Amino acid sequence: MTNVALLDDPQVLPFAPILWLAWADGDLSNDERALIADQLKDAPWLRPEARRRIGAWLDPSAPPSAVALAALRTLIEKARSSLGQSQRSSLLLLGQAMAGSGTTDESKRAATELIDLLGWGAKDAAAVPAFTAIEVPTAALQRALDGDRPEVRAQVRAFLDDPERRMYGLSKAEQRAKVRGWLKDLADSGLTKLSFPGVTSDTPDLRSFMTAFETLALGDLSLVVKAGVQLGLFGGSLYFLGTDRHRALLHDVASLKMLGCFAMSEVGHGSNVAELETVARYDHETRELVLHTPRESARKDWIGGAAVDARFATVFTQLEVDGQSHGVHAVLVRIRHDDGSPTRGIRLGDCGLKMGLNGVDNGRIWFDQVRVPVANLLDRFAQIDTDGRYQSPIESSSRRFFTMLGTLVGGRVSVGSAGVSVAKSALAIALRYSTERRQFGPEGGAEIPLLRYPTHQRRLLPALASTYVLSFAFERMRRHFAEVNTQPDADTRELEAEAAGLKAIATWHATRTVQLCREACGGQGYLAVNRFPDLRADSDVFSTFEGDNTVLLQLVGKSVISRFSKSLASGGVRAVLRMIGKLAAQQVLAKNPLEIRKDDPEHLRSRAFHLATLKYREESLVRTVALRMKKRLDAKMDPQEALLEIQEHLVAAAIAWVDHLVLRSFEEEVAKVSDPEAKRWLTRLGDLHALARVEETAAWYLEDGSFAPEKARGVRKEVQIAMRELAPAATGLVAAFGIPDACLSAPIAFFDPAHPP
Amino acid sequence: MTNVALLDDPQVLPFAPILWLAWADGDLSNDERALIADQLKDAPWLRPEARRRIGAWLDPSAPPSAVALAALRTLIEKARSSLGQSQRSSLLLLGQAMAGSGTTDESKRAATELIDLLGWGAKDAAAVPAFTAIEVPTAALQRALDGDRPEVRAQVRAFLDDPERRMYGLSKAEQRAKVRGWLKDLADSGLTKLSFPGVTSDTPDLRSFMTAFETLALGDLSLVVKAGVQLGLFGGSLYFLGTDRHRALLHDVASLKMLGCFAMSEVGHGSNVAELETVARYDHETRELVLHTPRESARKDWIGGAAVDARFATVFTQLEVDGQSHGVHAVLVRIRHDDGSPTRGIRLGDCGLKMGLNGVDNGRIWFDQVRVPVANLLDRFAQIDTDGRYQSPIESSSRRFFTMLGTLVGGRVSVGSAGVSVAKSALAIALRYSTERRQFGPEGGAEIPLLRYPTHQRRLLPALASTYVLSFAFERMRRHFAEVNTQPDADTRELEAEAAGLKAIATWHATRTVQLCREACGGQGYLAVNRFPDLRADSDVFSTFEGDNTVLLQLVGKSVISRFSKSLASGGVRAVLRMIGKLAAQQVLAKNPLEIRKDDPEHLRSRAFHLATLKYREESLVRTVALRMKKRLDAKMDPQEALLEIQEHLVAAAIAWVDHLVLRSFEEEVAKVSDPEAKRWLTRLGDLHALARVEETAAWYLEDGSFAPEKARGVRKEVQIAMRELAPAATGLVAAFGIPDACLSAPIAFFDPAHPP
Repeated sequence: MTNVALLDDPQVLPFAPILWLAWADGDLSNDERALIADQLKDAPWLRPEARRRIGAWLDPSAPPSAVALAALRTLIEKARSSLGQSQRSSLLLLGQAMAGSGTTDESKRAATELIDLLGWGAKDAAAVPAFTAIEVPTAALQRALDGDRPEVRAQVRAFLDDPERRMYGLSKAEQRAKVRGWLKDLADSGLTKLSFPGVTSDTPDLRSFMTAFETLALGDLSLVVKAGVQLGLFGGSLYFLGTDRHRALLHDVASLKMLGCFAMSEVGHGSNVAELETVARYDHETRELVLHTPRESARKDWIGGAAVDARFATVFTQLEVDGQSHGVHAVLVRIRHDDGSPTRGIRLGDCGLKMGLNGVDNGRIWFDQVRVPVANLLDRFAQIDTDGRYQSPIESSSRRFFTMLGTLVGGRVSVGSAGVSVAKSALAIALRYSTERRQFGPEGGAEIPLLRYPTHQRRLLPALASTYVLSFAFERMRRHFAEVNTQPDADTRELEAEAAGLKAIATWHATRTVQLCREACGGQGYLAVNRFPDLRADSDVFSTFEGDNTVLLQLVGKSVISRFSKSLASGGVRAVLRMIGKLAAQQVLAKNPLEIRKDDPEHLRSRAFHLATLKYREESLVRTVALRMKKRLDAKMDPQEALLEIQEHLVAAAIAWVDHLVLRSFEEEVAKVSDPEAKRWLTRLGDLHALARVEETAAWYLEDGSFAPEKARGVRKEVQIAMRELAPAATGLVAAFGIPDACLSAPIAFFDPAHPP
Repeated sequence: MTNVALLDDPQVLPFAPILWLAWADGDLSNDERALIADQLKDAPWLRPEARRRIGAWLDPSAPPSAVALAALRTLIEKARSSLGQSQRSSLLLLGQAMAGSGTTDESKRAATELIDLLGWGAKDAAAVPAFTAIEVPTAALQRALDGDRPEVRAQVRAFLDDPERRMYGLSKAEQRAKVRGWLKDLADSGLTKLSFPGVTSDTPDLRSFMTAFETLALGDLSLVVKAGVQLGLFGGSLYFLGTDRHRALLHDVASLKMLGCFAMSEVGHGSNVAELETVARYDHETRELVLHTPRESARKDWIGGAAVDARFATVFTQLEVDGQSHGVHAVLVRIRHDDGSPTRGIRLGDCGLKMGLNGVDNGRIWFDQVRVPVANLLDRFAQIDTDGRYQSPIESSSRRFFTMLGTLVGGRVSVGSAGVSVAKSALAIALRYSTERRQFGPEGGAEIPLLRYPTHQRRLLPALASTYVLSFAFERMRRHFAEVNTQPDADTRELEAEAAGLKAIATWHATRTVQLCREACGGQGYLAVNRFPDLRADSDVFSTFEGDNTVLLQLVGKSVISRFSKSLASGGVRAVLRMIGKLAAQQVLAKNPLEIRKDDPEHLRSRAFHLATLKYREESLVRTVALRMKKRLDAKMDPQEALLEIQEHLVAAAIAWVDHLVLRSFEEEVAKVSDPEAKRWLTRLGDLHALARVEETAAWYLEDGSFAPEKARGVRKEVQIAMRELAPAATGLVAAFGIPDACLSAPIAFFDPAHPP
């Protein structure tokens, strides 16, 4: 007899809500089971058949199937819709409604006692069968997510928890004014000085700085970018590329006395920074640098702050000394007087309306023989001595170029983690709405919450899991970044690849997640008041700024296949060959036929399987792309052309590498979590993330022969099970993001439309 | 010796540009080959070795590999960058630059003669190796795309080709005013009357009407939706649900004398229309209907036109006659006086700022015992007779409901095809930009156009191919729709499923395509002036309005697995069982081991393979989902609950069904194209679409065992080849969309940033 049929007994029905709740979190504890069984064992009024049926529902060796549980849930929902609002929160009345005339005094008493013994109050009953049924250790999860700088997060959250920090429907000028005001508030609150390198302390606490940035991204993103330009890019350029006389200015940067911008991009050269055309010629007679825009394609473009607010700019320019070009360098230039008028030789323009981030005044800069003292050269990595000679401790101009570009690494980590914050906001709104909003339902029954629909779970829950996992990956990234940055002369190449790869994956994740969330909220998601339009539009540029994602993944790919990208770019094949030899030796993961077919849940749910699977894909793709590269170089193909031909393969290898990195990082961080309940939920989230990722790339494993069809099927099934497990905990899991209510300012996050049930 | 090495001969190099151009379209004609070979056969100055090498390049049985062609292209680009602007358009000078000192008088003369004989003028040379190299029969392709109503398209294009029809950066009020003005222009131009049912002619020319709508969607989408509400939804409701006295009003609808809206959605019931709560009670004493909003969740919401402009509304409401409810019916209600003030008992609200489409005034309506004469009941499918008795020729209330909802079918076709128009605009801008904008390039060489990057091709070209294919699928859909609608009492269920499925697939395609295009244009794509922000924001709601895509796909799935969805919804299992029997009999596509491994290009490029592959997937998914449904119904599970459990599977089956439908429709339409060159390009586009779709779902075929790994690999490789073939034709292919320049008003579509090369 199936479990479903067990419900056909009027003596069983009064206990049905209890049976459902007992299994609701997918895990009936032994104590609960024993308690229920004991209580009913000797009940004389219970027919033996009814007792047997109840016993069957409690058998831990044969738990009810998903089909049975779903059928039970339907019965409960039907009964529930027949009750008044106040009665719905009673497990007892619910059972009676289900049993109808089958209710007896004995069954009432027995059910009452059971509910009492189990310690299930009205709260639990109200939750049958809604999705708040399962409590999660929100506080412990938030502690885990907040990582090593909870005090910084608390400060930023307090700053954000103010309804005045939200805007929409304003004109460009109004938005810019708002953001200017907020930036001032941020400085007044002391947050811009908080662990700002060179200000609060001489040893920079970059980790706190980046944590603050990530947290700030729970609020308005124009403010995030505006602050990022002023402190991270402008301030960062003085700190990382300048020397003491430049670092002395950082106090004024933090206090906003000195408003700056970061003038790198040119309209003709978005991603290809090495080809910038702006020139700074050194004039030894006056000890000045003369900056010039030689043609229109060299105009500085997209420069945040340049349209209105910035008084200073760190300008990236080709440096010419004595007629010789030394590649790209950074020079500090005053572009506006205090009254806002442009300084001599400077022309400024406005980029105009953008898809989003209109609180940031992106602008254009043209230089017409602009003269600045040579002291304005940010000269940590290259100097012009008093004799007018160019000097640099880094001989290779390409190595020097990449060292300077290192300033972008911190920005990439920050933008990537801001993407994770965006995903958190979107998921919090959508999941809160989805657990309350009901549409359609069983014939004659109440409508059911959107999140009970598998297609709805599919949209939101893997995204939730990945958001958790990425959040931890960035925590590890920040730690790693801070560690490397405090070691002088550390090799930063792996760090750069990690930052670039994480940035690409996280920002695309944000774009996809906001879109899924907006669609999951239907028309409500389309209203500006519900935040998705701005979340969507503001974060969209994340995938192309601070390095276009596709370009970044090629950098990652090159770095990964050779760990020696420079020699590869200049045609050196030896590094590639060495690498291939090493990888071939690693090819020990033979396709074990047992492993290939293994599809039991225990195996599929083990982190060892997830990690090995992602690692295997990474290594295979890296090896094969390296071999293809070698073949082309052997045929004397131009290395650039060869890279072009294998580009898709290269990007796939880079993504596989990042996938593995992300899961490893997550494991590393979660290992530190002490609360066992929190850890259990994190493990489940990690499972769903890893399984969904493997499912997404199943074609690769099947084609490779490392998965038999039954294994791919097993993975798909396990993804579905993991989603079902997480759905009832969704609102608790997003609560752990610790998003201030004022940031969550979408009315639908608090469910209105229009106040049922 | 490889082809690449063949280039190492200074006597070969002067002819290299000619050799490249000869192969550039992937297809060296026999005539061209013979001509070149003849011309050089007896050249006495040519060393036998050099002659042999040239001959090897021209061997049709061993065409140059992709690697060889790419290497040649690199050499050409390098030479090209050494030439001045005016010299670059000369094939001769290009060859000389490549040969350097290897150039002789003889080689010059021979090359000159060859170029002359081949009839390749400066135009071809300028195109080496840019992407305009390959000419496509744009006019013939446009004729094919324009389908059966070219004159309608021409009229709408003329209307749109006006720079005044574009806006951005305006406030909500300004946008609404603009759109109101444009709608008036549209009426003044006679376009609103054009083939408007019941106005121009009594037999409606729905095909022209829908073609006009699709073409209008090349311009501002607020105008499209505003016109769609007035003519398609409001006018359509009078035409389809009303009788003669209502149809008499259509002249005033077309002239805009009578501005209306379509009040269906309620805030509590977005997709679940059957559960609407607004009530119209029939009062026999006064022969009036009394409309009322019983609670807040019943307020009409999202109603386009309700916030400001509409004077009338078609209101969908539960009809109560003599205390008995008869389900949802439509009633014509005046909601505003001519001066714009609400009529008695009507309260109106504004939905506020939306992500996009802010030129449409979406609003809310509440009814407080609003009385209208019974004559206002749109009574084609149900009447209240003079005795106050409810009568309907359709007995089943659910059948009646779905018949009335049939009015939405036309809207779905129109929204879906508007999505295709949006994709066309986005692709036209992005592909035009990508063929001109250059970033990075070989060491020491010129930067190369974005579209030469395989990852860039991957973003844009499958989307281009699918846009073509979908465009034809909608042409067939419109024809089919018009045919069925002119047959009285035709069975419209398959038509409804087709419309719902195409709408879902096409609008998601639009969302994805605009996003890909915006990212492919980098920062430029983020500027409002370049159109992507509005294309993105305005079209985003397409996936949730006129039926949420996921909900629609479930309807499709139910319709497909049973072709009898009503009996399924009401729990009837017999239809399902019959279906399963039928499908099992069709399971003749055995997994032939030869077929499974077949991976030769000829096979992979055959439409028979594409169609059979899509069909096989469709039938397998439909069969398995039907079996799973049966299993649950056998276990006496609630049908609604059973549908919930198999929901993901059901949606997958629906998508597979639509995939097959789309390709079949494309084939049906392309078969009518007479121009052989146009047909050749359409076939290539169809190939890329089909192969990319198969590649995307490769995991399914691999898991199913119907593809061996080598076949999946073969498909992937063929996708890449198809992309390489189409890339050089991209701008010609988007030119065939016939988008007026004023609509393409993105500056980057005409390439500026900032005027290189």
